[in-house]
Amino acid sequence: MGLTITNQPQRAEPKAVAAAIEALAARFGNRLVTSMAVREQHGHTTTWLPTQPPDAVVMAQETADIQDVVRICAKHSVPVIAFGTGTSLEGQINAPAGGVCIDLRDMNKILAVHPEDLDCVIQPGVTRKALNEHLRDQGVFFPIDPGADASIGGMASTRASGTNAVRYGTMRDNVLALKVVRGDGEIIKTGTRAKKSAAGYDLTHLFIGAEGTLGIISELTIKLRGIPDTIAAAACSFETVEGACQATILAIQTAIPVARIELLNAAQVRCCNAYSKLTLPETPLLLLEFHGSEAEVAEQSKNFREIAAECGGGDFTWTTRPEDRSKLWQARHDAYWSVRALRPGAGVVATDVCVPISRLADCVVETEQDLKRLGLVAPIVGHVGDGNFHCSLLCDTGDADEMARGDEFMHRLVERAQAMDGTCTGEHGIGQGKQKYLKAELGGEALDAMRAVKRALDPQNIFNPGKILPQP
Amino acid sequence: MGLTITNQPQRAEPKAVAAAIEALAARFGNRLVTSMAVREQHGHTTTWLPTQPPDAVVMAQETADIQDVVRICAKHSVPVIAFGTGTSLEGQINAPAGGVCIDLRDMNKILAVHPEDLDCVIQPGVTRKALNEHLRDQGVFFPIDPGADASIGGMASTRASGTNAVRYGTMRDNVLALKVVRGDGEIIKTGTRAKKSAAGYDLTHLFIGAEGTLGIISELTIKLRGIPDTIAAAACSFETVEGACQATILAIQTAIPVARIELLNAAQVRCCNAYSKLTLPETPLLLLEFHGSEAEVAEQSKNFREIAAECGGGDFTWTTRPEDRSKLWQARHDAYWSVRALRPGAGVVATDVCVPISRLADCVVETEQDLKRLGLVAPIVGHVGDGNFHCSLLCDTGDADEMARGDEFMHRLVERAQAMDGTCTGEHGIGQGKQKYLKAELGGEALDAMRAVKRALDPQNIFNPGKILPQP
Repeated sequence: MGLTITNQPQRAEPKAVAAAIEALAARFGNRLVTSMAVREQHGHTTTWLPTQPPDAVVMAQETADIQDVVRICAKHSVPVIAFGTGTSLEGQINAPAGGVCIDLRDMNKILAVHPEDLDCVIQPGVTRKALNEHLRDQGVFFPIDPGADASIGGMASTRASGTNAVRYGTMRDNVLALKVVRGDGEIIKTGTRAKKSAAGYDLTHLFIGAEGTLGIISELTIKLRGIPDTIAAAACSFETVEGACQATILAIQTAIPVARIELLNAAQVRCCNAYSKLTLPETPLLLLEFHGSEAEVAEQSKNFREIAAECGGGDFTWTTRPEDRSKLWQARHDAYWSVRALRPGAGVVATDVCVPISRLADCVVETEQDLKRLGLVAPIVGHVGDGNFHCSLLCDTGDADEMARGDEFMHRLVERAQAMDGTCTGEHGIGQGKQKYLKAELGGEALDAMRAVKRALDPQNIFNPGKILPQP
Repeated sequence: MGLTITNQPQRAEPKAVAAAIEALAARFGNRLVTSMAVREQHGHTTTWLPTQPPDAVVMAQETADIQDVVRICAKHSVPVIAFGTGTSLEGQINAPAGGVCIDLRDMNKILAVHPEDLDCVIQPGVTRKALNEHLRDQGVFFPIDPGADASIGGMASTRASGTNAVRYGTMRDNVLALKVVRGDGEIIKTGTRAKKSAAGYDLTHLFIGAEGTLGIISELTIKLRGIPDTIAAAACSFETVEGACQATILAIQTAIPVARIELLNAAQVRCCNAYSKLTLPETPLLLLEFHGSEAEVAEQSKNFREIAAECGGGDFTWTTRPEDRSKLWQARHDAYWSVRALRPGAGVVATDVCVPISRLADCVVETEQDLKRLGLVAPIVGHVGDGNFHCSLLCDTGDADEMARGDEFMHRLVERAQAMDGTCTGEHGIGQGKQKYLKAELGGEALDAMRAVKRALDPQNIFNPGKILPQP
């Protein structure tokens, strides 16, 4: 059911683990860490999933380190789990079979920036904020923003996206090429800096979203964009959630190039008012951002304002001043913490369905009804321009009855989205938590194909075992 | 060398082929064709590559037909080659090992159009022109335009793109989900209609560009766009090819959202003047198209006109009237035939390098110098907004000396592009003709990974053998 893990791979042989750790200690000295505190930190998840720490952690500093860890682990058939910043939500960094975690945070070099080609080459541990800080003076930026200051290697591995995806796409659309360390420690190069290519199988996309189960990303060539001349932020409250969704649908259908369009439902707005001392009307809220020339953002927001008015939107607030933009978006920035504060200590289950945009209003409304019926608390925020929304379901893990209702809710939500030809995960990935939904979504044949690919590229099953693929 | 095929897979056993044909005849009656004329039509290439006809052709009408052909061929270990319209350029539909061609032209049903979600579901034999004809009344269109009226299944299989890619992306960016018939005749579903998904390995992208070597695409869900309010065409001649490339580079870097930006070099313009009775200045020419509101296209062309003036551009012609647009673009539309007419009977070798945009001017200039040095005729047209250009190299296949010089030119061109961190093929695919360049571009490890994937998904090697992967 919803709040269970279905895949519990067999633990690595203790003797093999001990031998691998010995070899790693000889190679890495004090960059090999086996203290429980550090191990737990590296298995820690921010969600309802229990922590499953690795047996050891290696702090990698360069590609050769990744290669050597993989070689040593392969020799002893011990799992290898890549770690970026630990902000994944579906247990991607847990170590259910034990093994060695490679911490890539120190592999944070920006190797080359080509502003004239709108691309750059980076190590996997570079975080998106550090990258954008570095790029700012060159007039370019990396647009993917999943909220957390995640590592870009991790974002590629989970096919992350976030608030900007409606305009700039997801990680799927913003990686030109990868270098990936394979099971024998050698490096696969998946592409060039050419903007397009028809040269053989698309290995780049095969590793994006593979959650470290097919190899370890050691280098990325990613796309950049020009920093827009003008950024405008806007906010608009709606009488109903249908109205807010309908306005979103019309904005997308009429091709207004919104950079961000985020929904907070009434429950989430209430939550934000309480946490951030705001005085927003406690009805559904859309927050928007427009990028372009001054004339373009003015035209875009004028067009959206007209749509909003047709859909029962109230006051439309609009600004291009950076400090006012931050204020306008404060509710969104604090959304996660506001939910946490609602019931400190409760587990937060982050759902992640994504549906065709025409079904968005139906899906959100039915989901709200379901929450009410089941007596559950789960404020909703959504990257609604993509048809993707998250319920932050609060569950007391010690309350069996609430957990059972949470379970039912989760299942019904995913079934609803899949019945609308949508997906159980728009951007969080499968990890451990969503394996049970994969077969219903794509069928047994797709799973067969994924398993065949996994066996082909990781015949030893050392790369992040127990993730993505449910046990047959 | 350049004009040689390196991969000659072993032919299927004659007895096995005979048995498969017998079974296919029983199942398909006169939809199984073995006449040499039809077989040669299905192995025919439009390039220098020799025709290698299949042993038989089945005219498929529905998915069950594909499934049965694959099952019968798998049973007898006989190759299966998918055929869309036969407009691929690298021998993708040739049958070097013999086998059965599945002609998908009658699988041309548009199964569902969802204008509200900007997507549609089609059979693989639908051509892009037929689709756009069908969609026109609904205000949406499918943007990928490779020139030929290719089938969309074929375009997905070769990861095609063309003139519109600079704004709308390639087939890689415009397919949401596929259904693919695998080796046992069962169907793999690779995705949903959700705009984004992080659900497991990206099988969609694995089959896009696989050239039918991993399975046969039986259904596609593809993205559509709103038909722009206004389309403007523009033309501008330049003193030098550097100037034309530099204007392109600046347009891309300043993020003017050009829908098309095509280069014709001086040789190509001369060729078009002769063939289409035009009076264009015989210097490099850029042709552009802008999509948007009336105000947007006016602003875009104003911005480009300023860039062109800085780069030695001459008169800038601009129009939004459909008939004038066609006239302005006539040289581009006739480019292929104008080259053919230059030396009737000669083979045309279509090159397809793609480089980072900052290297475009260097790459084109050095290529023109090389052509001059080698005494070869190869007018250049380019989708220069993507850094992709084609030399239409005319070679008399009976002239050993010219073929040798053509060979040298091809090799040097690909080496030049790869040295600039570009690719040997931006959009034509690898097929038979470009296998020899793949290792230099991506390395042996990438080829190992591709071979492992091929073995995993097509262990019998029945899907389009002899394509993409060079023999080890």
